[in-house]
Amino acid sequence: MNHADWIREEFPAISKSLGFVFTPGEEIQERHTRLREKMGRAGLEAFLVVQKMDCFYLSGTAQDALVFVPQEGKPLLLVKRELERARAESPLEHVVGLKSLRELPSLVAEHAGGPPRVLGLELDILPARDYLRLQSMFPNSRLVDGSGIIRDLRKIKSPFELDLMRKAGAIGKRVYHEAGKILREGMTEIEFGGLLEANAKKLGHEGLLRVRSFNYEAYSWHVLSGSIGGIVSQSDSPMGGLGLSPAFPVGASRKVMKAGEPILVDFGICYHGYQADETRMFCIGKMPRKFVDAYKACREIHDAVLADTRPGADCERLFLRTLQLAKGLGYEDGYLGPPGLQTKFIAHGVGLELNEFPFLAQGQSYPLEQGMTFAVEPKIVFPGEGSVGIENTVLVTQEGCEILTPIDMEIVEV
Amino acid sequence: MNHADWIREEFPAISKSLGFVFTPGEEIQERHTRLREKMGRAGLEAFLVVQKMDCFYLSGTAQDALVFVPQEGKPLLLVKRELERARAESPLEHVVGLKSLRELPSLVAEHAGGPPRVLGLELDILPARDYLRLQSMFPNSRLVDGSGIIRDLRKIKSPFELDLMRKAGAIGKRVYHEAGKILREGMTEIEFGGLLEANAKKLGHEGLLRVRSFNYEAYSWHVLSGSIGGIVSQSDSPMGGLGLSPAFPVGASRKVMKAGEPILVDFGICYHGYQADETRMFCIGKMPRKFVDAYKACREIHDAVLADTRPGADCERLFLRTLQLAKGLGYEDGYLGPPGLQTKFIAHGVGLELNEFPFLAQGQSYPLEQGMTFAVEPKIVFPGEGSVGIENTVLVTQEGCEILTPIDMEIVEV
Repeated sequence: MNHADWIREEFPAISKSLGFVFTPGEEIQERHTRLREKMGRAGLEAFLVVQKMDCFYLSGTAQDALVFVPQEGKPLLLVKRELERARAESPLEHVVGLKSLRELPSLVAEHAGGPPRVLGLELDILPARDYLRLQSMFPNSRLVDGSGIIRDLRKIKSPFELDLMRKAGAIGKRVYHEAGKILREGMTEIEFGGLLEANAKKLGHEGLLRVRSFNYEAYSWHVLSGSIGGIVSQSDSPMGGLGLSPAFPVGASRKVMKAGEPILVDFGICYHGYQADETRMFCIGKMPRKFVDAYKACREIHDAVLADTRPGADCERLFLRTLQLAKGLGYEDGYLGPPGLQTKFIAHGVGLELNEFPFLAQGQSYPLEQGMTFAVEPKIVFPGEGSVGIENTVLVTQEGCEILTPIDMEIVEV
Repeated sequence: MNHADWIREEFPAISKSLGFVFTPGEEIQERHTRLREKMGRAGLEAFLVVQKMDCFYLSGTAQDALVFVPQEGKPLLLVKRELERARAESPLEHVVGLKSLRELPSLVAEHAGGPPRVLGLELDILPARDYLRLQSMFPNSRLVDGSGIIRDLRKIKSPFELDLMRKAGAIGKRVYHEAGKILREGMTEIEFGGLLEANAKKLGHEGLLRVRSFNYEAYSWHVLSGSIGGIVSQSDSPMGGLGLSPAFPVGASRKVMKAGEPILVDFGICYHGYQADETRMFCIGKMPRKFVDAYKACREIHDAVLADTRPGADCERLFLRTLQLAKGLGYEDGYLGPPGLQTKFIAHGVGLELNEFPFLAQGQSYPLEQGMTFAVEPKIVFPGEGSVGIENTVLVTQEGCEILTPIDMEIVEV
């Protein structure tokens, strides 16, 4: 059988029978309408979208492709690999093959009637070499950074997206429920993390967490026990753990988990590209009072943020208020990291990536809007001893918020 | 306890007791000597290294940092997070904190005596926005692409690196041995893949596979069964499988594996950052003759490549010869992918990333050198039916080659 025939004839039914949900055409169209409005306000005649999740958002496929969006006319999906599958997955009308970037000017001329005077690009992620190549291909176009436009576009989640995020949350709920049955004394952090991940994947977790960055790596297996939980590493996080080697210095290590240690499990789930981020505390036996108290403080801060979450609330103020709360509760020193290494955010936007808007953080003074989703994560670190924390992914609703990660919040003592 | 004190006093012993191997100072020094030679030939007065694995290679730490390498004088490790840990991990002498990229010009002036006339950058990966920022910070410097120099530097592996790759291969051997015991009828591809990964992580596998690209994702859980093995996706691979959703369209799916289907398991292991890539075939019950025969052809091609592997052999010729071999064996159509979608390489260099030099591929005419490592992967695809293949990671030795993934090559029928 021919591959293209198989994709056309068998792929739709088989993929659906295996749980694939495809982005509806109206959803894609609505995203493009909003994008073109923003492009108009910014004076962009066209946008060449290259980043994988931006392309997925605007096309419905994660095949290796670019999306060319003219201000006038229909968007063009340019597929490097694999064309038939992109056609099967994307509701976009104009889907063509792209063998080399060299073909771009002629395709743009044919489709959009000529090179745009102002072309938007994701300069926050597009490699300099490609930027310089595009500049020489479109010598009379002004290339401008449009990454802010797309990030802004993606910050409000649609009902379709929220449904997938709720499903990611539901997978997380099951994984955390199982976690209490899997954990036992003598296991290493990475052994426990690996089993949690195997469980999650069986339920549809896609394994890789995505971050908008050329260098930043994210992943599920953050299991930090005892003193290891007090270690900061390269990630912009209150604690990073030891990891497995100097080449992979974050997350679970080969340390054996012992009774009476706080075990922090920060486990992101990815379902159909959409993520739910969550943290819960575990202990083999009884958790010492010091950590139980600190965990209570984290919950108090968490609850306070959620109580203030509604459209219009200022993101920076929400963050700053937690600093006061932590201070009042007696945890000024270890709140959000060891002294001098504290992170400057209490929540990060979550969706297709873990660093979307909004950020409830220092210097981020803008209002929450209905349809935003973010992960709130108050954490307290005791260097040399351990750390505690809680994290939930929430949706800003008309009146307040909805927790998308409805997992029991008690410490799990096994 | 203070975090910095803990890192200085406790981290070295604890990390070593948990299996951390640190890059020796002489190894780092030797890499810098070779880099400076190449920089000299290319006329670079300095190199600002930003990409995570390039930085790791040149510093021994994967903390969030940059490496500034002047042609004259000592290299400077500029650490965003976390400084004390970078100092504990890296043998470099000059390790300083970097709060913002804005501090770069003054640090460079202080350390290297002024801005370089010609500054090397990794333009293949550095985002355009950072490139433009650096250009405005160093207005009188010529910024040139030095990514080829670093990739060239990394293509020959040292005994220290090879030792880590052999250990990755040894983990793979154990995982594949266990795989035959885990596989059973009724499991989904992703369930099997998740358990393989959990097993591998327990043994030290770091989970994430790395590729030099701003958009390309790699991961361990490639389990492709029956007709799913015949599907091409976004990856530059003979087959990609279905994956779990349109957002994650590669690798294991939720398809239930049935008796009599070829099951291709392509599972990369990462140990201390170093990867070993390998593929073996499994079947529940007896594998149908058609696939057994095709697998034999893959082994024949694999053996032929290994027989010709030695310093001096031309990479493109090695690839082209396999096309003739496949044709002679009657597999011209499905060799390296379905007709029209065939990949143009038979092997890719492997080390800290999965797309290092050398490539045994079309258009890559250069000689193999002693110390190169690559993964040879002849594969044959039958669209709508399935695929077979074998893959081993090998080292070019003085006389020929050494297999770094010494796993039994027979089909595993369970």
